[in-house]
Amino acid sequence: MNIPRTSFPRVVIIGGGFAGVALARKLSKQEVQVVLLDKNNYHTFQPLLYQVSTGGLEPDSIAYPIRKILKDFPNFHFRLANVEEINTLENKVLTDIGELKFDYLVVASGAVTNYFGNSEIEKNSMAMKTIPESLNLRSLILENFEEALLTSDLNERNALMNFVIVGGGPTGVELAGALAEIKKGILPKDYPDLDTRLAQIHIIQSSNCILKGMSDQASEKAEDFLEKLGVNVWKNVRVTNYDGKTVTTNTDLTFETATLVWAAGVKGATIKGLDAGDLITKGARLLVNEFSQVNGFQNIFAVGDIANMVTNEFPNGLPMMAQPAIQQGKQLGENMVRLIDNQPMLPFVYNDKGAMATIGRNKAVVDLPKFKFQGAFAWYVWMFIHLFFLIGFRNRMIVFINWVYNYVRFDREARLIIRPYKKRLKK
Amino acid sequence: MNIPRTSFPRVVIIGGGFAGVALARKLSKQEVQVVLLDKNNYHTFQPLLYQVSTGGLEPDSIAYPIRKILKDFPNFHFRLANVEEINTLENKVLTDIGELKFDYLVVASGAVTNYFGNSEIEKNSMAMKTIPESLNLRSLILENFEEALLTSDLNERNALMNFVIVGGGPTGVELAGALAEIKKGILPKDYPDLDTRLAQIHIIQSSNCILKGMSDQASEKAEDFLEKLGVNVWKNVRVTNYDGKTVTTNTDLTFETATLVWAAGVKGATIKGLDAGDLITKGARLLVNEFSQVNGFQNIFAVGDIANMVTNEFPNGLPMMAQPAIQQGKQLGENMVRLIDNQPMLPFVYNDKGAMATIGRNKAVVDLPKFKFQGAFAWYVWMFIHLFFLIGFRNRMIVFINWVYNYVRFDREARLIIRPYKKRLKK
Repeated sequence: MNIPRTSFPRVVIIGGGFAGVALARKLSKQEVQVVLLDKNNYHTFQPLLYQVSTGGLEPDSIAYPIRKILKDFPNFHFRLANVEEINTLENKVLTDIGELKFDYLVVASGAVTNYFGNSEIEKNSMAMKTIPESLNLRSLILENFEEALLTSDLNERNALMNFVIVGGGPTGVELAGALAEIKKGILPKDYPDLDTRLAQIHIIQSSNCILKGMSDQASEKAEDFLEKLGVNVWKNVRVTNYDGKTVTTNTDLTFETATLVWAAGVKGATIKGLDAGDLITKGARLLVNEFSQVNGFQNIFAVGDIANMVTNEFPNGLPMMAQPAIQQGKQLGENMVRLIDNQPMLPFVYNDKGAMATIGRNKAVVDLPKFKFQGAFAWYVWMFIHLFFLIGFRNRMIVFINWVYNYVRFDREARLIIRPYKKRLKK
Repeated sequence: MNIPRTSFPRVVIIGGGFAGVALARKLSKQEVQVVLLDKNNYHTFQPLLYQVSTGGLEPDSIAYPIRKILKDFPNFHFRLANVEEINTLENKVLTDIGELKFDYLVVASGAVTNYFGNSEIEKNSMAMKTIPESLNLRSLILENFEEALLTSDLNERNALMNFVIVGGGPTGVELAGALAEIKKGILPKDYPDLDTRLAQIHIIQSSNCILKGMSDQASEKAEDFLEKLGVNVWKNVRVTNYDGKTVTTNTDLTFETATLVWAAGVKGATIKGLDAGDLITKGARLLVNEFSQVNGFQNIFAVGDIANMVTNEFPNGLPMMAQPAIQQGKQLGENMVRLIDNQPMLPFVYNDKGAMATIGRNKAVVDLPKFKFQGAFAWYVWMFIHLFFLIGFRNRMIVFINWVYNYVRFDREARLIIRPYKKRLKK
């Protein structure tokens, strides 16, 4: 990679997610050369992917060009690259566009869907971790209804209109709620030839509550909201397999469906060369100390979902969500400046701002550190916070207008099959 | 296709473009059963495709769900289908989802890119007639700059930054202008490592003027605007081949480029069974009479780009653009009601509302029947008209906000490679 060396130390950041971008911003005016590598040329606002899948938002409004985020900062370089390996002995990364030496390396590669080794589920299910995956899911949902119109086989038609979501975390809950609203508000108008009342939405959770990381109050209220919307919530049920037609579980329950969405887990997106047994902890995350240094290294750091930082309050590591990533990225930026100035680094202290999830219009649950609330006000707070954390004024405006429109009109106009999913499968 | 017959006659419309949608709307409250077939579930606002390609608009804002357009009308059916053949003897259409009998058939299948038989150009060039094609072009443009950063071979780098557009019609002119604005406003900030002044934009036109269908005044002014923006306009030059690297022409001129956009012609999207020699005229269009009836048929009609309707003013057929399509669709809707009522049909009279093209900010050319003007006011008129003809309030709002933002900020934020183009090629 032909990036000329300057007199400043070079920091290579792998990944332009919340952590990588927060870090790069902090370093942008410092005496370091920053090289950010990402396999996409855009930052993805993952918390809203489910709205892309359900036709409420266009993908372009939750993506932001990485080059633009840091365009005014000197000493910043972006390269569109897949990192294939990290050579920790020679301090270099190997990518599909060549090698790159680093003085400091920050792994912010995020997380990928965790199928827990079940390759059949991996092959037959839909995930929702990236924009292309969300667009695939959007297409599949719409294609299923188009196909349901064509069949006279009742079982097949029901399977096409059944949606099974595995995992009762925020992703699963938010997707289930959005699908329930589509079923109620849009399907009867779009498909007058179909009895769309037969469409079913199931959410399957292996433990005894949904939204496990949140308060009992939030969890119970979310379940209540889902049931009001007509979603079937199955707790204490673990999905064991899915062959593309039938979902089997560890109980007698089975589901016939053409669509299984796998939102049951994520794991760290590890990279070859930094994935030895002693570095990796539960969920394929890299063990880091309070300075985000990867166990055993002085100049290699990890932040965000890939990093497993254990605190007193979170003995299994900080939660894999936006807030810890952003805070770690910022803190590491400050620490790197200290490190280069030969000052001692400051330990990371997580400022827990709480958690929230939305289920549908006027239906959200919010856990703030000192205050928990649910319902319409929570929904407004949810929207405000999400708009605030979106990058870019234009994206905020576009998302806001879409939300107002969808709210007033009970509508979601982005129900477009722009990248057909099934056709590509058949090819 | 399991669409139950009613006591009303069945009108099958092939294609949900301007003509098909205008016709369906007219028939929506009449005593006919309407079945609209399209290979996409959305209507595309083709005049703005070039803005999708150049990152100014998201694709979802110029597409509209066909089901939604006609959701409140009884007796309307939509099917997502590829029409494979028309059987004119048995009055039925054959599609990839089954057969369908019709009482009346309206072919509104539009136009496809015309490569004039040159398969090498077809293979190596980019077209811009559909949303997926426009997204591919968007990706390719951005990928080229990412790749230009990686090469130290000057010729290769120049080829990656050279853009050759063949065809000086509205599509070619609007794309060239948008690329020139990107070169000036965005590239230097996004790619500080590249000397983006070396990026070149060429537009090649085989005849002696651009915007041939418009007034001399518009044509000359458009050329002037393009040259001010730094676009190289080549007239009286015909492209003869492109092997993926070098564009050859009928003169000594050659161009080294990684990107050839073919906007040099369209032809009717004919369908097997209705493509015999005596039906098809120049540009693969179906000859129709003043009632839009296909030559030799009482119950088969054609409207829009596919129809060749000859008038005194247009001896080579009406132009292939939105206005004739919309007007023909509306008129045919009225005539069908008359036909079913056993009243005589009224002949189509084209109301020429003029033509327009935009070159860049404050730079457009407008030919109204009685009034021609160019510059900033023309640009506002162009925007207003395009917003007016977009379907859907939400789309209008989103496009409007994008335009205001892009205007105020000299920006185009949708420069996202969401569907990588080159990667798919390499696979």
